[in-house]
Amino acid sequence: METIKEYFPFWNKMSVQQQMRLSDNGVKRSFKKGERLHAVTAECTGVLLVTKGRLRVYTVSEEGKEITLYRLFERDMCLLSASCIINSLQFDVTVSAEEDSEVINVSADIYKDIMSENAAAANYTNEIMASRFSEVMWVLDQVLNKKLDTRLAALLIEESELSGNGVITLTHEQLANHIGSAREVVTRMLKYFQNEGMVKLSRGSIEITDKKRLSETAEPSVR
Amino acid sequence: METIKEYFPFWNKMSVQQQMRLSDNGVKRSFKKGERLHAVTAECTGVLLVTKGRLRVYTVSEEGKEITLYRLFERDMCLLSASCIINSLQFDVTVSAEEDSEVINVSADIYKDIMSENAAAANYTNEIMASRFSEVMWVLDQVLNKKLDTRLAALLIEESELSGNGVITLTHEQLANHIGSAREVVTRMLKYFQNEGMVKLSRGSIEITDKKRLSETAEPSVR
Repeated sequence: METIKEYFPFWNKMSVQQQMRLSDNGVKRSFKKGERLHAVTAECTGVLLVTKGRLRVYTVSEEGKEITLYRLFERDMCLLSASCIINSLQFDVTVSAEEDSEVINVSADIYKDIMSENAAAANYTNEIMASRFSEVMWVLDQVLNKKLDTRLAALLIEESELSGNGVITLTHEQLANHIGSAREVVTRMLKYFQNEGMVKLSRGSIEITDKKRLSETAEPSVR
Repeated sequence: METIKEYFPFWNKMSVQQQMRLSDNGVKRSFKKGERLHAVTAECTGVLLVTKGRLRVYTVSEEGKEITLYRLFERDMCLLSASCIINSLQFDVTVSAEEDSEVINVSADIYKDIMSENAAAANYTNEIMASRFSEVMWVLDQVLNKKLDTRLAALLIEESELSGNGVITLTHEQLANHIGSAREVVTRMLKYFQNEGMVKLSRGSIEITDKKRLSETAEPSVR
């Protein structure tokens, strides 16, 4: 596990013994696109270091509605899958692979031990948590302040940038899950966008045809 | 400042020098009910230790709509007023006194220095942030999943318990701010609650007349 140290900016501030405990403990795991890495009901999965692919972290309502909190890319560390390392972390999330992905899984116990001894590790963990907290505050802001057209337009722009070719292959159901809405509501709004010439809907894909206007819808304050 | 050590469970894990820096730096400040302790646009106010009263931490939308994230009571520590101590904390909140309140204000620089040297301080800060993060996740869950009647009923129960006599003296505007809704919507729902015999509305106050049913409305899943 020679690459593990690249994931920990505080590597050189650890004792050799701590470094060995971290590297010896890391286990490589692979996940297929769509597979769940960590579920709400799961035991503490541990810290996940993304070496390949893309993870989606989301929360699921009682009625099964999903809302995306944030995504993790290569070189990111997933902390909320190890919520047991911090007593006051009193909520659960689900983590799924959005592409075929590979992670290094470090057990929560080991990480917690090192964090309790090492100020640099604890401060880095603070930074990671603050970063996720900030992303969730952004989601809350979106949900509270922005209208559905704005949120959907922003999501389409984001997804088309991830796909790289301006075409989105997510289903209406998946889009609805991302923004915590219902499929029918999203379908209605997509048809409105199509009527306005901003997108072209086909079976199984959405193509952006007027990115400028869609971007303006996504950021109405900039208009 | 002899009481300051009661606020830091890691007091005995600090050096005498660190203890002195913390106690020497703490400044007592008083705030009248309704006064703002920390605003979005403010510089980094620092860590606030609540010695008396009650603080409300909330976020304000572009249109001036408020939503309560959580409250801080005596012996609580307000970390988000010192967001500059953690680089990745990329959002701002507003903090107001909900009652006449007193705090000890520790400057962000001092706290950050100690946290960077001392694992116990950093881990405690982690716990505080995780706790606030959890409260915000709860708010997000409320906003996403619960209907307005549920949220308003839950708020009325909570407020009546804070007031201690089953009477709520908040205005409809204030109630709306707490749950991120509009005054007219709250007024309409309160009238519905009154028609159902759950509350009695008077000028300037709301009295709970059927706490059992209001509680059931607040927690529909328990019904």
